[in-house]
Amino acid sequence: MSFQRNRLTDSLLAELITEAQELLGQGQVANYIPALAQVNPQQIGIAVCFNDGEVVAAGDAQQPFSIQSISKLFTLVQAINLYQDELWQGIGREPSGQRFNSMVQLETDRGVPRNPFINAGALAICDRLAARQSAPTFQLIESLRKLAANPQIHCNQRVARSELAHGARNAAMAYLMKAFDNFANPVDTVLSNYCHHCAIEMSCIDLSRATSFLANKGRALDGTHILSPDQTTRVNALMATCGLYDASGEFAYEVGLPGKSGVGGGIIAIYPGHFSVCVWSPELNPVGNSLIGTWLLESLTERLGISIY
Amino acid sequence: MSFQRNRLTDSLLAELITEAQELLGQGQVANYIPALAQVNPQQIGIAVCFNDGEVVAAGDAQQPFSIQSISKLFTLVQAINLYQDELWQGIGREPSGQRFNSMVQLETDRGVPRNPFINAGALAICDRLAARQSAPTFQLIESLRKLAANPQIHCNQRVARSELAHGARNAAMAYLMKAFDNFANPVDTVLSNYCHHCAIEMSCIDLSRATSFLANKGRALDGTHILSPDQTTRVNALMATCGLYDASGEFAYEVGLPGKSGVGGGIIAIYPGHFSVCVWSPELNPVGNSLIGTWLLESLTERLGISIY
Amino acid sequence: MSFQRNRLTDSLLAELITEAQELLGQGQVANYIPALAQVNPQQIGIAVCFNDGEVVAAGDAQQPFSIQSISKLFTLVQAINLYQDELWQGIGREPSGQRFNSMVQLETDRGVPRNPFINAGALAICDRLAARQSAPTFQLIESLRKLAANPQIHCNQRVARSELAHGARNAAMAYLMKAFDNFANPVDTVLSNYCHHCAIEMSCIDLSRATSFLANKGRALDGTHILSPDQTTRVNALMATCGLYDASGEFAYEVGLPGKSGVGGGIIAIYPGHFSVCVWSPELNPVGNSLIGTWLLESLTERLGISIY
Amino acid sequence: MSFQRNRLTDSLLAELITEAQELLGQGQVANYIPALAQVNPQQIGIAVCFNDGEVVAAGDAQQPFSIQSISKLFTLVQAINLYQDELWQGIGREPSGQRFNSMVQLETDRGVPRNPFINAGALAICDRLAARQSAPTFQLIESLRKLAANPQIHCNQRVARSELAHGARNAAMAYLMKAFDNFANPVDTVLSNYCHHCAIEMSCIDLSRATSFLANKGRALDGTHILSPDQTTRVNALMATCGLYDASGEFAYEVGLPGKSGVGGGIIAIYPGHFSVCVWSPELNPVGNSLIGTWLLESLTERLGISIY
Repeated sequence: MSFQRNRLTDSLLAELITEAQELLGQGQVANYIPALAQVNPQQIGIAVCFNDGEVVAAGDAQQPFSIQSISKLFTLVQAINLYQDELWQGIGREPSGQRFNSMVQLETDRGVPRNPFINAGALAICDRLAARQSAPTFQLIESLRKLAANPQIHCNQRVARSELAHGARNAAMAYLMKAFDNFANPVDTVLSNYCHHCAIEMSCIDLSRATSFLANKGRALDGTHILSPDQTTRVNALMATCGLYDASGEFAYEVGLPGKSGVGGGIIAIYPGHFSVCVWSPELNPVGNSLIGTWLLESLTERLGISIY
Repeated sequence: MSFQRNRLTDSLLAELITEAQELLGQGQVANYIPALAQVNPQQIGIAVCFNDGEVVAAGDAQQPFSIQSISKLFTLVQAINLYQDELWQGIGREPSGQRFNSMVQLETDRGVPRNPFINAGALAICDRLAARQSAPTFQLIESLRKLAANPQIHCNQRVARSELAHGARNAAMAYLMKAFDNFANPVDTVLSNYCHHCAIEMSCIDLSRATSFLANKGRALDGTHILSPDQTTRVNALMATCGLYDASGEFAYEVGLPGKSGVGGGIIAIYPGHFSVCVWSPELNPVGNSLIGTWLLESLTERLGISIY
Repeated sequence: MSFQRNRLTDSLLAELITEAQELLGQGQVANYIPALAQVNPQQIGIAVCFNDGEVVAAGDAQQPFSIQSISKLFTLVQAINLYQDELWQGIGREPSGQRFNSMVQLETDRGVPRNPFINAGALAICDRLAARQSAPTFQLIESLRKLAANPQIHCNQRVARSELAHGARNAAMAYLMKAFDNFANPVDTVLSNYCHHCAIEMSCIDLSRATSFLANKGRALDGTHILSPDQTTRVNALMATCGLYDASGEFAYEVGLPGKSGVGGGIIAIYPGHFSVCVWSPELNPVGNSLIGTWLLESLTERLGISIY
Repeated sequence: MSFQRNRLTDSLLAELITEAQELLGQGQVANYIPALAQVNPQQIGIAVCFNDGEVVAAGDAQQPFSIQSISKLFTLVQAINLYQDELWQGIGREPSGQRFNSMVQLETDRGVPRNPFINAGALAICDRLAARQSAPTFQLIESLRKLAANPQIHCNQRVARSELAHGARNAAMAYLMKAFDNFANPVDTVLSNYCHHCAIEMSCIDLSRATSFLANKGRALDGTHILSPDQTTRVNALMATCGLYDASGEFAYEVGLPGKSGVGGGIIAIYPGHFSVCVWSPELNPVGNSLIGTWLLESLTERLGISIY
């Protein structure tokens, strides 16, 4: 388990990206909204942020992309801060065993989403935030700018609108939770917040820095305590069992780190005590995770022998 | 993440057991077969086996009990040795999001069990073993005796017969897999093996020793290499996402270690690089895991600050 | 099969109602919206309308009540007139085998409701009507007034509003159909129409007259041809297999006539070639059909020996 | 509703068969067991048996074929005679809304099959028969020989064995019912009976005669009372809502008669008070019902205007 940090260099990352390029064309860019479908698929980025703040990176690591469901991680953290354990009334902590937007389980479980990382769960989180935040999207962006030390981070309004215009299934989930008295605020408002969160754009470097506190017992790069050490391991545990939708088991098996993916093609992963990492490439595998991103993380952890298990 | 081994002593474990006794009576002993229902519920045991072979223990740590589904871990390891990656044709690696004996998912997934730790998956594993082992139960017991360095380990025939007599649902699952061409051997034979595996009896000390290789990169206490380091992390990853049935997420959240439970009231857990641990107490929580066993592991990892996440 | 019309008299109906009163208190008034929960449960009505226009009735047969899902029958007839066979693109004709408001099947069947009598199907019908009618509720009420020859028929706005305020599950279904491109109009508009249809109030006499065309090859009491003979048998066939939600099989078995129920406690049934009948009593059985209404129809058809089967 | 019997002649039936020949090749012969797959697909038969015993027929009406699931109708009738209303403890009377061999619903409904015409329900019926009949298959054949007045009726042993060899899914259903204490006899025995019942061979003429009692208030052609008039309408009601698997609604809509189909390509239907009819052609539609058989019944009832609805 002795991690050799000196082996994790810009040139190792560049090497991985060169190999990864052979996989271009094997996946498919998310096309459920037009705004996402237009992204150039031939981009690959990776950035590692060590707990001392040093960043190593390669490829398109500075190119902002749509963080999509990775936002679910940050809204969860905000909700934990606002609600502590009370948050888990009405939101589960189990893997779902279903597609990320399945309604079957939501009905079976009487409106209680399985975990905060499937769509229904993240909508429930946004519902909770809407009750206690005056301007949720603004507050989320502010916090991400601070975590990543990048004041340029912003929400792509065109993507947010496109997302909202194709949000019928998310609306269905929100209304189903409302039918079970597990959704307090107006669906329209919460859905709009949710879509704006997904449409935030950040680069691999931004995301590796912004998630650094999860590798460092809750302590952000600027020294702020975002979560307690206990809360941190628990958020990581949730990512480990639920972070990659219905491929979370496979990700634990092949990569061996807690992680969270988004359909924009980004995946963040945490090596507790050492570093956070973000990979990005827009083409997705059939489950909806970045095909090349997954491969990059598998290769990285295999070469360094750093599965947490 | 600095683990202070000297804090993990017999007296710490004894202290935990004293506290745990207040929880006696809150759970319910497994009663689906008469033979299991007769166990004295007021027993609590815990044993930790460090990678150097030292064992610390407390309570009823020497009392043999029915290992039940913990056997699924050992048959998986045997099957990995016999089949390597080929094993995963027809057996998944994802949490199920359903009860351990659900048929719904098995039908939806066209006869492919979600993972090797739910009943259907373990039956599929036993089917594979039946194809290549001449005497599966005998071979399993032999291997457990060696791993635990205890020649007394045996199968309780009365429990095995009782199990078999109440095995209609397992038979249903096996036949459904057969209907999807994912089960090669006679159902009766495989079911009998499966029930005999579940009826093996071991103590906390036995189990902590027998699972030591999972904390030590695949190396057993006698120096034998049971699995490669890579295979070891992967088995641990499977336990982390699927080892506690439909409470695997909760276990990762609260305990933070890979583990595997059985309805006999035992749970084993692994702290990679350091130790394996087995707890036992027959009363179960509603999900089917030992109520006090779960509490013991939560308390242990909380006090020592040793979540892997 | 020789139907003896002279046995079907006011006094037979009065006798049935007297017997039925012993069942009062065994069911439960619909309470999912406050406005419905306030109805006096001790009411029982029955009215039979022969094909020549004669009406025999007893009990509270003149008391208007909320027709609720019986409206689904009338909107279906309107939609058949507007769309003919094209209507069945996107709406099935099979019993659902699920609760009337289940989302599971709607997701499995990719947004195509099983039949026009479950909520999702009726919402889809309202969606189709919204595309071709300028004022659906007004037009429905107009048509019901003509069919029943009663200009007093109206919609209870308080019930409609209450229904709309508790319509989250219906909204969820509508949005899920929209997500599958099987719902064209704004959900709010269609939902409002749907709730107003359900809130229309009619008496047993009104409903027996309004459904007379279904017993008379499509010909209404005023001689208008509402449906062709073929269309009529098909609407009746749909009622026979799907009209009583997840108790349609039982209703065919015990009553033996095509029928349609509503949670307001009304049930209409058709004896083709002879008469239409409406029963009403607010207390429901666990499946959501009028407990006494069902008993009245069972007793009526048993005494007269008039199952269509 | 005035049925003109004189229009229903051999030549009308012959005409329908000529037209039907154009549909040959559009369906697919059942191929789940080799023995059935070998049948010549180019065969079409139809036979009508009036309540007075007169038979009109055309095409291959004298050719015996595998009755398959039509046997479920006859075993149901036997079970009703042996158990009366007690039969319905543990067997439902509702359409399933699922494939005929689905396990999902069986698990959800805790081992109670939805109705006696899906496989699970018919297996439960065979289980009940096994408890009270000494030689179920022999007794069934005896009864069919009498009903059809044909001593040649027999079971095709080769088909029965082939059926049994591919019966894993049926075994799964039987064991699942056993797991819910809704199956008393040994699965092997009952399954063997069930497969032998399915493998009985009868012609269209045989089947139209054997089901005549269902059109005649329970009175068989030889005057025997097989069922009471009430029981008869109820069996017909069950066929009307559940007789054609997951196409029962469609069949009611298009044909308008109670019916029961088998994967051998036969379908029987009942016009209560007048006649029973059997059609046969081996090619099936995607739901598993005879494609040409369905078309023949649709055409027949459309031309004669004889929907019961």
